[in-house]
Amino acid sequence: MAANDSNSRIAVVGTGLVGSGWAIVFARAGFPVSLYDAAPGAAERALSLISERLNDLRDAGLIGDPAPIHARIGVAGSLAEALDGAVYVQESVLERIDVKTALMSEIDAVVGPETWIGSSSSGLGASLYTGHVVCRARCLVAHPVNPPYLAPIVELVPAPWTAPETVKGVRALMERVGQAPVEMTREAEGFILNRLQGVLLMEAWRLVEQGLATVEDVDKTVSQGLGLRWAFMGPFETIDLNAPGGVADYAARLGGLYRSIAASTTEHRTWDPELVSRVEAQRREILPADQLPSRGEWRDRRLMALARHKREMDDLDAKTRSAR
Amino acid sequence: MAANDSNSRIAVVGTGLVGSGWAIVFARAGFPVSLYDAAPGAAERALSLISERLNDLRDAGLIGDPAPIHARIGVAGSLAEALDGAVYVQESVLERIDVKTALMSEIDAVVGPETWIGSSSSGLGASLYTGHVVCRARCLVAHPVNPPYLAPIVELVPAPWTAPETVKGVRALMERVGQAPVEMTREAEGFILNRLQGVLLMEAWRLVEQGLATVEDVDKTVSQGLGLRWAFMGPFETIDLNAPGGVADYAARLGGLYRSIAASTTEHRTWDPELVSRVEAQRREILPADQLPSRGEWRDRRLMALARHKREMDDLDAKTRSAR
Repeated sequence: MAANDSNSRIAVVGTGLVGSGWAIVFARAGFPVSLYDAAPGAAERALSLISERLNDLRDAGLIGDPAPIHARIGVAGSLAEALDGAVYVQESVLERIDVKTALMSEIDAVVGPETWIGSSSSGLGASLYTGHVVCRARCLVAHPVNPPYLAPIVELVPAPWTAPETVKGVRALMERVGQAPVEMTREAEGFILNRLQGVLLMEAWRLVEQGLATVEDVDKTVSQGLGLRWAFMGPFETIDLNAPGGVADYAARLGGLYRSIAASTTEHRTWDPELVSRVEAQRREILPADQLPSRGEWRDRRLMALARHKREMDDLDAKTRSAR
Repeated sequence: MAANDSNSRIAVVGTGLVGSGWAIVFARAGFPVSLYDAAPGAAERALSLISERLNDLRDAGLIGDPAPIHARIGVAGSLAEALDGAVYVQESVLERIDVKTALMSEIDAVVGPETWIGSSSSGLGASLYTGHVVCRARCLVAHPVNPPYLAPIVELVPAPWTAPETVKGVRALMERVGQAPVEMTREAEGFILNRLQGVLLMEAWRLVEQGLATVEDVDKTVSQGLGLRWAFMGPFETIDLNAPGGVADYAARLGGLYRSIAASTTEHRTWDPELVSRVEAQRREILPADQLPSRGEWRDRRLMALARHKREMDDLDAKTRSAR
């Protein structure tokens, strides 16, 4: 398969924040990347954003010299040119069914017979915009967390007509470029990540709505407690290690408490406008609106530092294992 | 108040894993600590566990010389002796109403007139076992995450009769010893942390139940994606920074998706025995039962390294702010 050849080209179609992030992922792993965006000048702007981000990654000690990575990324003059010789297309255009449907027709007209097409869609399943194309067995969702070069997770979600080989091939490609692919067996709204985030947010809204805790204290409970394990273990491994006999033992001890909590979390006004205003007011006291961009930069620095920290710890774990 | 005097003694009553962890927190901050446990020999065993943990913390670069910290922790021969001169009692006995009720009577008989009493209870509100004691206005829940010397969060939860000054005083004490206290305005089952954990687990169980994803992939989605931001920001700050206009803007863009996800998460068999067995089977394939203890040690090493990483980053942030 062409994905085993690192000269295989990757096409990134749609070069906003998400597409630019993907270009870094693939180029960092040694793949030539073609950028294409229907908006004139957008791909060129992406190239300069990519250049800045690569410098940030170098400053954070996450990559060496940015120059050879940057050199692997080029701008294509047309969709056909971008897809020429591409083993994989990462589509990252606007999250709208009509936009994605139209683009898929265009891709279908020029795509090679073995090329896989992954969509960065965070909510729309591939079944909503790939049913009409000839290449539909080679289409799936490959949903990243932003920015993908710092958060390795990629959710692979097949449409009913996606071939199993497509999932297998894209999974192998994602692993090869250093991402952490997970697979859904079929589509479900929000996929895995946003379903998990959604229910936690639902309860967070509820705690504020009922006046049980402030926005700041809900955040602190996660950032100074609950989120610490979750930065390197998932929720199942966390509870598996939190009872002497593992997860079944944990369920026997605490299932009753959690069932009872679940029963009291159903009725509430999550995402209700009045409630949103109250949370907004609390957030703007903590962080004035004009400081949102600089706080976003802080977040990116912390994510980079955390990525470096996790890599160092993983390397140490690997050394410890191999020394045994 | 006596808590401003670092010679004020702290009494730790109940010296299992949680009580031992608390002793480290207070002694690390300079407070003399008296250990008391009704089970003969338990406090002495705690002292040797504490000694091991202090060595681990030193090896991880989180504390300097363990000796002076260890020297501040002593074993009391009786409850009265442990409470003598104590500004604060951290109660960490078995999570059972009858056990805590009986202990509160004993504490009530010997406690000083200004001493606060915090319970480490992870589920039982103080209203369930402090209503009968004279000192009840000075009682509350102070629920840590284990181990408290690595996860700073402390949930302060008042009973209906807890005096506001008690919450204020214990909050100041917790901040002084380097913990991160949050406050609930009143009791709610599971407090903040386990309510948030409970709903996320509920959806995690559901994804497995419906065959949408494996246990391993649910865990990976958190540890390689969702949990990364949550290790240093809470859920509200995360979404506040994920839309150009902040949290209200985010709610306008994504509230519909999340409402729709919420509607599909209600009916399922969370914590059901058959489902628990399926998850247990998947976990035991990933981690055989005999490796649970060594994986627990791995988790503790990673938590220590993450704590050091976060402290370094916080110090860097503070320097950047003061340099402005």
